[in-house]
Amino acid sequence: MIEKPYSDSKLKIFALSSNRPLAEKIADEVGVELGDINISQFADGEIKVNIDESIRGDHVYLVQSTSYPVNDHLMELLIAIDALRRASAKTINVVIPYYGYARQDRKAQPREPITAKLVANMLVQAGVDRLVTLDLHAAQIQGFFDIPMDHLLGAPLLANYFIDNHLEGDDVVVVSPDHGGVTRARKLAEFLKSPIAIIDKRRPKANVAEIMNIVGEVQGKTCVIIDDMIDTAGTITLAADALMEKGAKDIYVCCTHPVLSGPAISRLEKSPIKKVIITDSISLPEEKYLDKIETVTVSQLVGEAIKRIHENRSVSPLFEEQFKLID
Amino acid sequence: MIEKPYSDSKLKIFALSSNRPLAEKIADEVGVELGDINISQFADGEIKVNIDESIRGDHVYLVQSTSYPVNDHLMELLIAIDALRRASAKTINVVIPYYGYARQDRKAQPREPITAKLVANMLVQAGVDRLVTLDLHAAQIQGFFDIPMDHLLGAPLLANYFIDNHLEGDDVVVVSPDHGGVTRARKLAEFLKSPIAIIDKRRPKANVAEIMNIVGEVQGKTCVIIDDMIDTAGTITLAADALMEKGAKDIYVCCTHPVLSGPAISRLEKSPIKKVIITDSISLPEEKYLDKIETVTVSQLVGEAIKRIHENRSVSPLFEEQFKLID
Amino acid sequence: MIEKPYSDSKLKIFALSSNRPLAEKIADEVGVELGDINISQFADGEIKVNIDESIRGDHVYLVQSTSYPVNDHLMELLIAIDALRRASAKTINVVIPYYGYARQDRKAQPREPITAKLVANMLVQAGVDRLVTLDLHAAQIQGFFDIPMDHLLGAPLLANYFIDNHLEGDDVVVVSPDHGGVTRARKLAEFLKSPIAIIDKRRPKANVAEIMNIVGEVQGKTCVIIDDMIDTAGTITLAADALMEKGAKDIYVCCTHPVLSGPAISRLEKSPIKKVIITDSISLPEEKYLDKIETVTVSQLVGEAIKRIHENRSVSPLFEEQFKLID
Amino acid sequence: MIEKPYSDSKLKIFALSSNRPLAEKIADEVGVELGDINISQFADGEIKVNIDESIRGDHVYLVQSTSYPVNDHLMELLIAIDALRRASAKTINVVIPYYGYARQDRKAQPREPITAKLVANMLVQAGVDRLVTLDLHAAQIQGFFDIPMDHLLGAPLLANYFIDNHLEGDDVVVVSPDHGGVTRARKLAEFLKSPIAIIDKRRPKANVAEIMNIVGEVQGKTCVIIDDMIDTAGTITLAADALMEKGAKDIYVCCTHPVLSGPAISRLEKSPIKKVIITDSISLPEEKYLDKIETVTVSQLVGEAIKRIHENRSVSPLFEEQFKLID
Amino acid sequence: MIEKPYSDSKLKIFALSSNRPLAEKIADEVGVELGDINISQFADGEIKVNIDESIRGDHVYLVQSTSYPVNDHLMELLIAIDALRRASAKTINVVIPYYGYARQDRKAQPREPITAKLVANMLVQAGVDRLVTLDLHAAQIQGFFDIPMDHLLGAPLLANYFIDNHLEGDDVVVVSPDHGGVTRARKLAEFLKSPIAIIDKRRPKANVAEIMNIVGEVQGKTCVIIDDMIDTAGTITLAADALMEKGAKDIYVCCTHPVLSGPAISRLEKSPIKKVIITDSISLPEEKYLDKIETVTVSQLVGEAIKRIHENRSVSPLFEEQFKLID
Amino acid sequence: MIEKPYSDSKLKIFALSSNRPLAEKIADEVGVELGDINISQFADGEIKVNIDESIRGDHVYLVQSTSYPVNDHLMELLIAIDALRRASAKTINVVIPYYGYARQDRKAQPREPITAKLVANMLVQAGVDRLVTLDLHAAQIQGFFDIPMDHLLGAPLLANYFIDNHLEGDDVVVVSPDHGGVTRARKLAEFLKSPIAIIDKRRPKANVAEIMNIVGEVQGKTCVIIDDMIDTAGTITLAADALMEKGAKDIYVCCTHPVLSGPAISRLEKSPIKKVIITDSISLPEEKYLDKIETVTVSQLVGEAIKRIHENRSVSPLFEEQFKLID
Repeated sequence: MIEKPYSDSKLKIFALSSNRPLAEKIADEVGVELGDINISQFADGEIKVNIDESIRGDHVYLVQSTSYPVNDHLMELLIAIDALRRASAKTINVVIPYYGYARQDRKAQPREPITAKLVANMLVQAGVDRLVTLDLHAAQIQGFFDIPMDHLLGAPLLANYFIDNHLEGDDVVVVSPDHGGVTRARKLAEFLKSPIAIIDKRRPKANVAEIMNIVGEVQGKTCVIIDDMIDTAGTITLAADALMEKGAKDIYVCCTHPVLSGPAISRLEKSPIKKVIITDSISLPEEKYLDKIETVTVSQLVGEAIKRIHENRSVSPLFEEQFKLID
Repeated sequence: MIEKPYSDSKLKIFALSSNRPLAEKIADEVGVELGDINISQFADGEIKVNIDESIRGDHVYLVQSTSYPVNDHLMELLIAIDALRRASAKTINVVIPYYGYARQDRKAQPREPITAKLVANMLVQAGVDRLVTLDLHAAQIQGFFDIPMDHLLGAPLLANYFIDNHLEGDDVVVVSPDHGGVTRARKLAEFLKSPIAIIDKRRPKANVAEIMNIVGEVQGKTCVIIDDMIDTAGTITLAADALMEKGAKDIYVCCTHPVLSGPAISRLEKSPIKKVIITDSISLPEEKYLDKIETVTVSQLVGEAIKRIHENRSVSPLFEEQFKLID
Repeated sequence: MIEKPYSDSKLKIFALSSNRPLAEKIADEVGVELGDINISQFADGEIKVNIDESIRGDHVYLVQSTSYPVNDHLMELLIAIDALRRASAKTINVVIPYYGYARQDRKAQPREPITAKLVANMLVQAGVDRLVTLDLHAAQIQGFFDIPMDHLLGAPLLANYFIDNHLEGDDVVVVSPDHGGVTRARKLAEFLKSPIAIIDKRRPKANVAEIMNIVGEVQGKTCVIIDDMIDTAGTITLAADALMEKGAKDIYVCCTHPVLSGPAISRLEKSPIKKVIITDSISLPEEKYLDKIETVTVSQLVGEAIKRIHENRSVSPLFEEQFKLID
Repeated sequence: MIEKPYSDSKLKIFALSSNRPLAEKIADEVGVELGDINISQFADGEIKVNIDESIRGDHVYLVQSTSYPVNDHLMELLIAIDALRRASAKTINVVIPYYGYARQDRKAQPREPITAKLVANMLVQAGVDRLVTLDLHAAQIQGFFDIPMDHLLGAPLLANYFIDNHLEGDDVVVVSPDHGGVTRARKLAEFLKSPIAIIDKRRPKANVAEIMNIVGEVQGKTCVIIDDMIDTAGTITLAADALMEKGAKDIYVCCTHPVLSGPAISRLEKSPIKKVIITDSISLPEEKYLDKIETVTVSQLVGEAIKRIHENRSVSPLFEEQFKLID
Repeated sequence: MIEKPYSDSKLKIFALSSNRPLAEKIADEVGVELGDINISQFADGEIKVNIDESIRGDHVYLVQSTSYPVNDHLMELLIAIDALRRASAKTINVVIPYYGYARQDRKAQPREPITAKLVANMLVQAGVDRLVTLDLHAAQIQGFFDIPMDHLLGAPLLANYFIDNHLEGDDVVVVSPDHGGVTRARKLAEFLKSPIAIIDKRRPKANVAEIMNIVGEVQGKTCVIIDDMIDTAGTITLAADALMEKGAKDIYVCCTHPVLSGPAISRLEKSPIKKVIITDSISLPEEKYLDKIETVTVSQLVGEAIKRIHENRSVSPLFEEQFKLID
Repeated sequence: MIEKPYSDSKLKIFALSSNRPLAEKIADEVGVELGDINISQFADGEIKVNIDESIRGDHVYLVQSTSYPVNDHLMELLIAIDALRRASAKTINVVIPYYGYARQDRKAQPREPITAKLVANMLVQAGVDRLVTLDLHAAQIQGFFDIPMDHLLGAPLLANYFIDNHLEGDDVVVVSPDHGGVTRARKLAEFLKSPIAIIDKRRPKANVAEIMNIVGEVQGKTCVIIDDMIDTAGTITLAADALMEKGAKDIYVCCTHPVLSGPAISRLEKSPIKKVIITDSISLPEEKYLDKIETVTVSQLVGEAIKRIHENRSVSPLFEEQFKLID
């Protein structure tokens, strides 16, 4: 009998096209080089995936944010998964730092799709074995999957920024820009040992303009608005204006996912916001890097998670370690 | 050829054991009698389901809240579904006014289950074709299913109670008992044309008692605390105490799902809460009906939904009609 | 490339709440300590499972009999499986010494469920990779699963008891208490080198009481009634009475699964049965341990099976070894 | 909007190649003509199925026993199902009067397949919506399926034969040819109001020939041996010899499924058996029709079941009606 | 019992954004108006699907070619399917006149995906009940699906064009532009009663230019090059040049799917090709309509197929009717 | 904790009954002995599979061509897979040198099955983890599977035969016997550096006999007809006659799969064909080995593939190596 002639399964990381800079930093962190893959488009726009090294029997990690252009990035990911499955990868692990379509996570109107679940179904059907992701728009999206998932948190990284800059304690108020984000604000506030406030948009009567009511104290305080993502920056810049009107001292904005589409950059630029702290979960083009934008990298966090997964070590202490950084 | 000798598919409603009073009202509303079913337990506690009339080719609706004892009620439901599937029901529609295990809807700690998803998987695997439910703990649980689901809302029914009792406008403040429920409070506040407040529980330092901070104005106001469910009533009675301390005039509490377990009844009894408005999504035993409890029935809402589903008419206008009741 | 930094997959055994004493003995046999798990109930009866050590990449064995209260024990098991799957167990192996709901294994009446299959579907859907079980009510339940299953047999252990006590040969007759159990009786009789008899309950005419006819010779013999489980003990104590009337010398009863629900204990106590031999597949509460009950442990058998499974050694020789004990 | 231009769904019955005579009788009973289908083999033995009429939107019933040559008959059935599914049948209902491979329904030895389950999985995977079958070797095979199944019983039809021939009451004894068939014998005995006996084959010591012990009284009685199927007729003819030795008066044998393979016909011919009562669940070639074989048709039973299924009427009263014939 | 209060299921056709002109013609043909649907993109490029009328219980047909931009068009389709499924459509039928990614239908190189299968899996997973499509790149793609599929053929429509223009018989030669398309050429040649030729591109030695060898006679003939799709038009224009060199009289090109990407239009314009006959399976932008392009519509064919499907009438006579047009 | 007591997973190869000689050569090549398995039939034709050694935790390869009798060979394979799955094989790898039913790979007529897909579904449902096969009738059949598949090519082996016999260059013409095989002919022609020709069967008018037109030059040349399989040899012997009439010098025929059913052998014998080159993908009975038949073995190719798969080494270089043999 031939026993155990196997070459051992290797850990391989491949970057798809959405966020190669982050993938490179993650690979560095893990201590491997990015695998050889080529993503291109045919003349008619169909995606072509060439994996240019054997991955037979290996543990493969694909790094891809499903950011703009989301449909191309998602199909790229699905096609790469299909190729890996047919090419005998031992496990297919997908690292999605920014999970697109996450806001379509429930039916809010009749006959709406739940696209975040559709995407989950597509990934699983294509052959994913495990998902590593970061700050899902709703934690319940974890339940859209039955495969193992490691859901990493960006909040401690953002908190570190403020603590390092001595923005904490009672001079600071963490502001939720809407009703759904209060829990997120409360969590950051705990890191910063600060109180919270909520922007309570309401329309007092029909045919009357919506007003930006603020529940909580902001007068003379440094306000830190937190959201999981900034898309067109409309809500957040209106919130900033309202906070300034109420006597806020300074305004900082932070988020994990800098979607920054449409008028976002010009709105942020013109707004009274002092700094915008983001992570590199989405790769920004050069022209979007305003001076007021500061980036915190998630590569160390993700890289450490991959190492722990690959070595069968618990990923949860990672959170505790993140927290310890702060104390 | 034998063409179309079919007897037409009938609509049949069966009550399992958790909430027969509600099932009877629903059947009345729909205009049918409850089907003949017998649920019992063998000496060793195994559940026995006997369906005592043919349902071959029929559209069957099972009414069952997965309330206490949740595991028995859930297994009853799964077993009844299995029996219906094997007995050639045309469609199996499950009406779950209260969806138990809904709070375990994400991993909040390492190595936690997502039991709300497990339950969804069990239901689908057993053979459910459609789900009708009410005020899920998180709207994202809709995405735990890929089958058609009609998610009904209890808020308009609760709002009606307050409007009927002239509790609306600026004398009233709708209070969210925690950070996660602010959106729910905001919705009720819209019905009542009132402002909102939030109970912001926080621990100022380690080893220091948690304090009940209130964000928003409550002095001299009638406070309406809203939650989707009241379980042990701990949070809500502490909130009531805190509101009274801050000078609230009167305190009302309302929820869709009166879980009311453990010390809930005695806590509510002793608390300064004036009225507790609940629905009949969960059937309360006699001894739990405090004088201060008022019940609003969901039978009309659910019954109308079943009729519309059965007749291929849109269920969504139902929400609009609910709203119209208020104007 | 990072090659093989994996810490090796460990074997871990966790006891859920139905039969911790057996799980402990099994773990002893295997040479490991039981893993750290905490099963509790929330105030409203929902089950909470906390796995208090990392199982990432490990081969996990859950020990749980789905005995009374069967629905709680089954949900506990399903929830623990869900938690293990999401927490990246390498394989999830379920050890169910007593498989509840096994008697609902076919449709005997119109519109009956096949709950034993429903349970199988639930386990597989939740994520089980392998099942180890003991004396299924019908061997065909093996076919309710497509995953690997190791079906262990209790009969040799019970036979050993009689052989050790010199109850064998032509002075003994093995009695099947009903028509369906004759094969089981024949197997034990082969171990004991004894003849068999059958209790042939029949109703000679309508409206006439059922009579306990005995097919086979029992006069002056030691009768050993065997069944896979004793539930309310009704059939078996009536059989004992009938055997005594026909001149049996002594009566022994044996079974693998001591369900012993309802009046079972008082019936056994009052009956002319001399000894009741059971296994510890179900954990009995103190008050049920009659003096006439003798327990044979299955822990050695199950423990050895787990070791062989974990070491990729064949489980089948185990049966042969069991048999050799007897010769 | 175009509303309901549908031509109504028709009931269509197609005979595959195993038992066309029975299919024709069933179609007669239902009142339709057999559909136009052509089953042939290519030169290399691959099966070719041509459905020569549109079945789009129809309720199709395929009649096929998976009798010898079982693999060809099974593949025929699977291929026909595949063709129907792709050709837009509304429902695909499979009528399998004799379900082959049913005896491989559990693992009796290490590393055995459970082929009866494999067959169930193949049928369901191919696209079957419903199964109608007759006297499964073990009733638990019902649980190998989760689709609706109507499991018909041949025993009342066989009982009728004996009652019509005045073979009932205490002059008759129903004999189970082995330990596993006692329940079946007991059921027939109830129809005939007769006692039972069991052939208890055992080997008294190692290296000693097996002896045919008879448990129960047969002296001077008309013995009716019943089994679900007769394959090589070895057991049954040995049983007949043993019964004659013990002074039996006459011996009748009956079964639902006349597999009759290998030496069966010559064994039956030479045996002291007076009559062999079978059904037409399997089509016998001319040369196997011994004079002592009597055939009872199941076409009325199956045809009535199909009509009831098609008309959404309960199939269970059919059993009661069968029973009434006897009283 | 409420019997049959159902409003009857309606046929509804919705156009997604790829080919609304064709969808309108199809709806005309069927005799319905297009359903009310709104497809838009959020600022970040995520697709939003609003179905603006109830489709509960209806038979819905979605018309969408997965042409450029293929990933957007495919996601649109999947999202619309998800929405329809959750909104209780009775059946979801997808009409894909041009099935994108069809050329990635096998692994031609190591580690390639089979994207055409991935797309099939995605469609089925999302909830499609039936597919109607036209001239798949390989007929075997039918086997990528297990749901009913109606695969329509464009060749007879193209043949009609040539027959109407008296281009048939021995003066015409039908040319396959490559080795894989000979069967397609042979089929058109049968309609036109003409001989065939093949362009046999080969490289005589390494490092020597590929030559366009022509197998068959073309001198003095009208050549009709046929392909299933024209993408960049490189092969086909080189073929045209080679045919002219060999003395062809006139060159016509025809295809079902005018992908026409990249340099296609300018190549066709400059080439000696006289006419390019295409269908409207893909909607061309104004600027691509060269004078030499002639369009044949598939709307009548697809519309008639939908009517037949909806009315449970066989779709196959449609092919025969198409053929009759020609005789 | 017990860490890693596993005996290592072994590579085991089992031969089922269709092609044991090839399996033995493959095992030799791999360097293992064939595993202990016993395939037999019960008297009634049901297949019995006994695996006579433990395969718990092993990587098992089953070698079986689904050649004549195809249904028996296919069921054998499915049953063996079922047995392996239940017996805890670590992976089940199926080596199908000749994949039967491959020609039924699309619907060419209304209401046809796609049996090649049905077979794929059956294999996957039964539990196959990986497929190794050779020269599928259509490469698209790869997409009928989503599991990893290694599709080996026989053409280089056949090409070697001709090169070794100095049959290459411009004196040779490679002939496709029909329109669908031109690509295959082109590939062989590339190995041999020869031109191609096509047999263009057409019927000039209705009611006129089909004529064997030859597109391309064959006069005075050695013709090599290539097909993937030779079944009844009708097309190929007619082609040979037509080529001789057109002045061909010599005729060779080659194929990967020698199905050779019905009149094939006598046709080949009588035909002007000089040599028939086949592989041993199908085991021929002695009496079919004509003198003009030459066999090339695929055992080295398959054996090398198995070794590479087992050792996690890329299989694709194998093709390049095959090619190198020729240069």
